[in-house]
Amino acid sequence: MDHPARLHRLLFELERRKIDALLVTHLPNVRYLCGFTGSAGILVAASRPVFFTDGRYSEQSRAEVQGARVVIGKGPTLAVAAQHISRSRIVRLGIEADHLTVALRSQLASALGKGIKLVPVSGAVETLRMIKEPAEIEAIRSAVNLAARLLKPLLRGIRPGVPETTVAARLEYMARRAGAEAMSFETIVASGPRSALPHGVASTAPIARDGFVVLDYGVILNGYCSDMTRTVYVGKPGEEERALYRVVLEAQLAAITAVTPGSPAGEVDEAARSVLKRARLAKFFTHSTGHGVGLEVHELPRLATRQEQVLQPGMVVTVEPGVYLPGRCGIRIEDMVLVTERGFEVLTPATKDLIEL
Amino acid sequence: MDHPARLHRLLFELERRKIDALLVTHLPNVRYLCGFTGSAGILVAASRPVFFTDGRYSEQSRAEVQGARVVIGKGPTLAVAAQHISRSRIVRLGIEADHLTVALRSQLASALGKGIKLVPVSGAVETLRMIKEPAEIEAIRSAVNLAARLLKPLLRGIRPGVPETTVAARLEYMARRAGAEAMSFETIVASGPRSALPHGVASTAPIARDGFVVLDYGVILNGYCSDMTRTVYVGKPGEEERALYRVVLEAQLAAITAVTPGSPAGEVDEAARSVLKRARLAKFFTHSTGHGVGLEVHELPRLATRQEQVLQPGMVVTVEPGVYLPGRCGIRIEDMVLVTERGFEVLTPATKDLIEL
Repeated sequence: MDHPARLHRLLFELERRKIDALLVTHLPNVRYLCGFTGSAGILVAASRPVFFTDGRYSEQSRAEVQGARVVIGKGPTLAVAAQHISRSRIVRLGIEADHLTVALRSQLASALGKGIKLVPVSGAVETLRMIKEPAEIEAIRSAVNLAARLLKPLLRGIRPGVPETTVAARLEYMARRAGAEAMSFETIVASGPRSALPHGVASTAPIARDGFVVLDYGVILNGYCSDMTRTVYVGKPGEEERALYRVVLEAQLAAITAVTPGSPAGEVDEAARSVLKRARLAKFFTHSTGHGVGLEVHELPRLATRQEQVLQPGMVVTVEPGVYLPGRCGIRIEDMVLVTERGFEVLTPATKDLIEL
Repeated sequence: MDHPARLHRLLFELERRKIDALLVTHLPNVRYLCGFTGSAGILVAASRPVFFTDGRYSEQSRAEVQGARVVIGKGPTLAVAAQHISRSRIVRLGIEADHLTVALRSQLASALGKGIKLVPVSGAVETLRMIKEPAEIEAIRSAVNLAARLLKPLLRGIRPGVPETTVAARLEYMARRAGAEAMSFETIVASGPRSALPHGVASTAPIARDGFVVLDYGVILNGYCSDMTRTVYVGKPGEEERALYRVVLEAQLAAITAVTPGSPAGEVDEAARSVLKRARLAKFFTHSTGHGVGLEVHELPRLATRQEQVLQPGMVVTVEPGVYLPGRCGIRIEDMVLVTERGFEVLTPATKDLIEL
């Protein structure tokens, strides 16, 4: 990963906004810009970048940080960084408005004194992160493949009566054993009527004797996230259930096909929604169609109604329409998709045929 | 749990500060005040409390929320709450300065218009949360006991050559199977020279043939966290290692004995530090002695140098001194301790004798 090149692109953007430096406090952004993977550190992104952390991370930061001088401070890292900034030529200092809290902003302002103006900045680093470099795409591919390989053994453990949490526990154990650093979000195992909850994290409820089970999970591998959903059926689905599944799958395929460089993100959402509209199911699709994935599981772009962000090669997004009939059942199907020069590549290597258990 | 009584105590405090309402956005605080356990919701804590969430949580919020009216909004929840506040008699609105971001604060300010003054508030709810109610202490006890029961089976899996991540994976699987909702923080398994890292989350490094292994982990059960550390020895410790372990244990016991209602939190820290000082090891104790635990794994009070917060019955804290010899080895021993009317009660039921594997 070419961290100095990323910093360079950020500085270009800051210059355009007439900002001398950006105080990068959001850890995924810090990691993206200089490679530090620890849990406490601040990067002052400027023409002479400096990374600040504390004694716990002295060895680690020296091994990891690229393109920035490393300073191991005593006391609160924000105060140490503020002291450095006060002594620099920085006049207009950007802050990450979407991440810095009101309290830290005010501590920072007091520490800096009046000569320095704080400028709220939204999404500067996040916008860079939207377009993945080849090495990042490979990292994402590895995470996606690891997660997909777990699907078959995961399904083997799904039987009526087994608590959803047990299904999740087995999955997470297998993921860890396979080398995952962690799950990328709380595992969703939602069975029977619970499948109608779009966000049904595994509960102690037992797998229902007859019904859909929504499995939505992801792993983190080398810092990069994966995210996939499959909905399977325990028992024998009726014709109505099969038809419902077919419609959701059709919506998902239509959305994937709409992934094209140059198109606005909203069109992908619209593609899924219009299939569901024809089946009179649009009102049961209560969330957006997808989101970017990378160092965080929810990144830009958002694939939602009227989103005008243009898709570009190198973006990696989820495509995950769903239908939720309250009190009855729900179905969601989700792949990760890479925007390529000519169209799209589905990254998730797992069947979408309706699996009966 | 008596949520309305908690809200009442908060309102009393707000009145003292001449604040009409507090916009509670930090989810553990929302949960504490009204019982909502979902992942998106805002509580306007005022004489007529109102809880705002979105369509995904309509069923759940109606089942869980106590002491506040529930409003299911369309669109961003912050905007919905702002609209309600604009139409109310609220003039001075507290915001959670330690949690609200600069960007959300500014969105809020625009949505509210000029008649309403935003007042940054720090720690109002967190201060209430310091003192645990009997039901909370029982919940914490259950989480602590669950975690402690996993220690023996955990130790059975620790052998030279086994990757630290595998040790962590087994632990997390057992925790989940035993009913834990999640781990309360990233599991630390740090073996051999890695034990000298105070924050050595499990890596792919194999358990060393001869040396200490620091095991620091916790579970979440019914929303409440546990946190414990044991350091064991793989192989046969030499006299030097034994002596080092004895000193850390002595420091930990001295700190526990210093837990007394009416004493400043800093005295507990000082008690541990002075034992290490006598052994000329104080400079290798590079973090503070402990912290409160409850709905979050790091809460008030902080047991650190010069902390003046007075200990009170009902507080639950960790006591976890450690010694870290860079490049060589580290030892940390951690229990959770309840402050009682007369002194303390150690909650963690696990031996602190040096275990050899």
